[in-house]
Amino acid sequence: MKIKEIKLGTVTSPHGFMAGAVEAGIKYEGRLDTGILFSEKPCVSAAVFTNNRVKAAPIILSMKHIQYGNARAIVVNSGCANACTGDIGMRSATETAELVSEKLGIPQEQVLVASTGVIGTHMPMEKMKYGIQKLKLAADSGHKLAAAIMTTDTRPKEIALRVEDTTGKYTIGGIAKGAGMIHPDMATLLCFLATDALVEKDFLRKALKKAVDGSFNMITVDGDTSTNDMLSIMSNGAAANIEINAGNGKTFQTALNRVCQYLAGSIAADGEGATKIIQVDIEGARSMIEARKIARNIAGSSLVKSAIHGNDPNWGRIVAALGRSGAYMQENKLEVYLQDVAVMKNGLPLTMDKNRLSRDINTDKVFIKVCLNIGKGKATAWGCDLSEEYVTINSDYTS
Amino acid sequence: MKIKEIKLGTVTSPHGFMAGAVEAGIKYEGRLDTGILFSEKPCVSAAVFTNNRVKAAPIILSMKHIQYGNARAIVVNSGCANACTGDIGMRSATETAELVSEKLGIPQEQVLVASTGVIGTHMPMEKMKYGIQKLKLAADSGHKLAAAIMTTDTRPKEIALRVEDTTGKYTIGGIAKGAGMIHPDMATLLCFLATDALVEKDFLRKALKKAVDGSFNMITVDGDTSTNDMLSIMSNGAAANIEINAGNGKTFQTALNRVCQYLAGSIAADGEGATKIIQVDIEGARSMIEARKIARNIAGSSLVKSAIHGNDPNWGRIVAALGRSGAYMQENKLEVYLQDVAVMKNGLPLTMDKNRLSRDINTDKVFIKVCLNIGKGKATAWGCDLSEEYVTINSDYTS
Repeated sequence: MKIKEIKLGTVTSPHGFMAGAVEAGIKYEGRLDTGILFSEKPCVSAAVFTNNRVKAAPIILSMKHIQYGNARAIVVNSGCANACTGDIGMRSATETAELVSEKLGIPQEQVLVASTGVIGTHMPMEKMKYGIQKLKLAADSGHKLAAAIMTTDTRPKEIALRVEDTTGKYTIGGIAKGAGMIHPDMATLLCFLATDALVEKDFLRKALKKAVDGSFNMITVDGDTSTNDMLSIMSNGAAANIEINAGNGKTFQTALNRVCQYLAGSIAADGEGATKIIQVDIEGARSMIEARKIARNIAGSSLVKSAIHGNDPNWGRIVAALGRSGAYMQENKLEVYLQDVAVMKNGLPLTMDKNRLSRDINTDKVFIKVCLNIGKGKATAWGCDLSEEYVTINSDYTS
Repeated sequence: MKIKEIKLGTVTSPHGFMAGAVEAGIKYEGRLDTGILFSEKPCVSAAVFTNNRVKAAPIILSMKHIQYGNARAIVVNSGCANACTGDIGMRSATETAELVSEKLGIPQEQVLVASTGVIGTHMPMEKMKYGIQKLKLAADSGHKLAAAIMTTDTRPKEIALRVEDTTGKYTIGGIAKGAGMIHPDMATLLCFLATDALVEKDFLRKALKKAVDGSFNMITVDGDTSTNDMLSIMSNGAAANIEINAGNGKTFQTALNRVCQYLAGSIAADGEGATKIIQVDIEGARSMIEARKIARNIAGSSLVKSAIHGNDPNWGRIVAALGRSGAYMQENKLEVYLQDVAVMKNGLPLTMDKNRLSRDINTDKVFIKVCLNIGKGKATAWGCDLSEEYVTINSDYTS
């Protein structure tokens, strides 16, 4: 049982996956904006999508295609979300899947379509067509694809883990983009995972859901959930391992969790305008569900985020966010820690050296821990600080 | 049936109410920080409080006192929230009520206590005692009290309406403070209403709840609900009108709604760092409850708020916030308006002059209207734009 991170690993680190990205002209000149991820071999696949009631056309199409559970290609663009575009939008998404299906010689139903960008503008299909034609696939182009899906991200998010367990040796890799409109559920905008492990279809679906619940569904940047969120996994069995299922899948699940937590954490750390990542650990809540609710509320509080930004150890805001979550608590049992320094015990403020604490949280990773001491519920959420820069980014006249 | 706004009206505009404020030294030098509102005559009274699970000591005490329904004095301070302060905090709140009860010669149960300020610090009782002793009441000191309860508010919020109906002539006045940590429910931090009308106790309670649901519970500044929210009304019957009850109370309700909407709107407009007020009108939702949910979600979206701040008519973010609310909708029936200009109809983007629209929303009151065209549910919410200044205010090292 070994799990090891591959240096500079990405979504094409697993065997049999190719990627490519081009400048189709959908975004702006000099910017990769359209990409494809493709498995040379047939796949078992699963995906989760935004819970927003307004779903972009590519999401509606991909939700239909993923039902077959054998998607082996993803086409993705930035610069246009193809959301709120009605029938024209559905035709554009379908035509995009057709173009990719022809290019790769696979059935249309095996193509997922993902888009990110401005809502309410139509997809420039001539550019998309040109981009798909021009695009070249290569086994080492995962990094290029990770760059192409970036929007206001400041850096690509990619990882791959090499796993060895009783079923054999295999690799899980992934890329993601985030930045704004990030909130449970689904927290991510786009995330594509690939593995060369052979995985049983039903187990893959459940393992993905579990991994996402503890990672992408526990990050928040700004409380907004997008119309275009999509996270998928394709497994092509190129590693020739014994098929992974509920019986022997423990290590696979652990590795998948790690991939998702890494990518989700990277999204939180790279939230629009963020200068710090905030990790919120909740212990001793009445249940895991309540612990998750509390963790998200604290990580999502504008006042907590602003205080952390300014190195202000104003823990009262943490307790206020906890109380607002609606979860059961007993005030006189509460404990609160900032960077492992206790600031509240038995529901009462402790004497603290505020200047020192302010210096302690003047760092790029801030830990908040709350112990409720009434049960066994645990959870961790990730968020980022709220900076003036977030507002500047999002108030630019860009639409 | 006449309702008329009184010029420079405030909480002491109704007959028989006195107020006062002093510099007790709880906040900082040169700053009024402690005040009292008092009715010379016995009162019928009602109040609503924060839904935050963590409640400040004065809230817990006031919730107990309001059960008698005859509070006739409120003591309020800024600079210290007396929240997360355990037994010591409860003793401080009780002692404060005692001091006021002695000063005014009324039973302790007729005193409500309200505090606002930093969470997790103990009330400096010597200063409070000194302040209460020094404080002088006057019938024209409503403005002074409105100023004393300000925290990061940039201006006091006060209003009074002169009403004439079948029951007689009477006045309703009120003051409020808001600025940050503003979110349903309860949206306000502190709001004190007074009327010289004679009002039946049970009707007063219901009328207050109704007025608050359509006003303070429909504003949002930053999604955070405070530990110290309190809104109260005292009616002393000094106007010698016929007792108002459910049968003859329609005009009273209308006037009370107007007072609450004015004060709630003022809080939204004066949100921390706000440069604009945003009014969100929802029509044609499946129900009023769903309409309210949608309205709050849009008014509370960081991305919508940032776009409005930058005069960016990026209405896609409005639709995304609508979809995130979880309320039922049919995308192809949606209509969206910005300052009365249709930007989306039948779920599709309309051709629009973006530069003109950007100029249109470059004003201090921005109207967003969404028609769902599937039912009769209506609601209005108020919020404000999100500016760099919000972050600056809240990241200052102040605790």
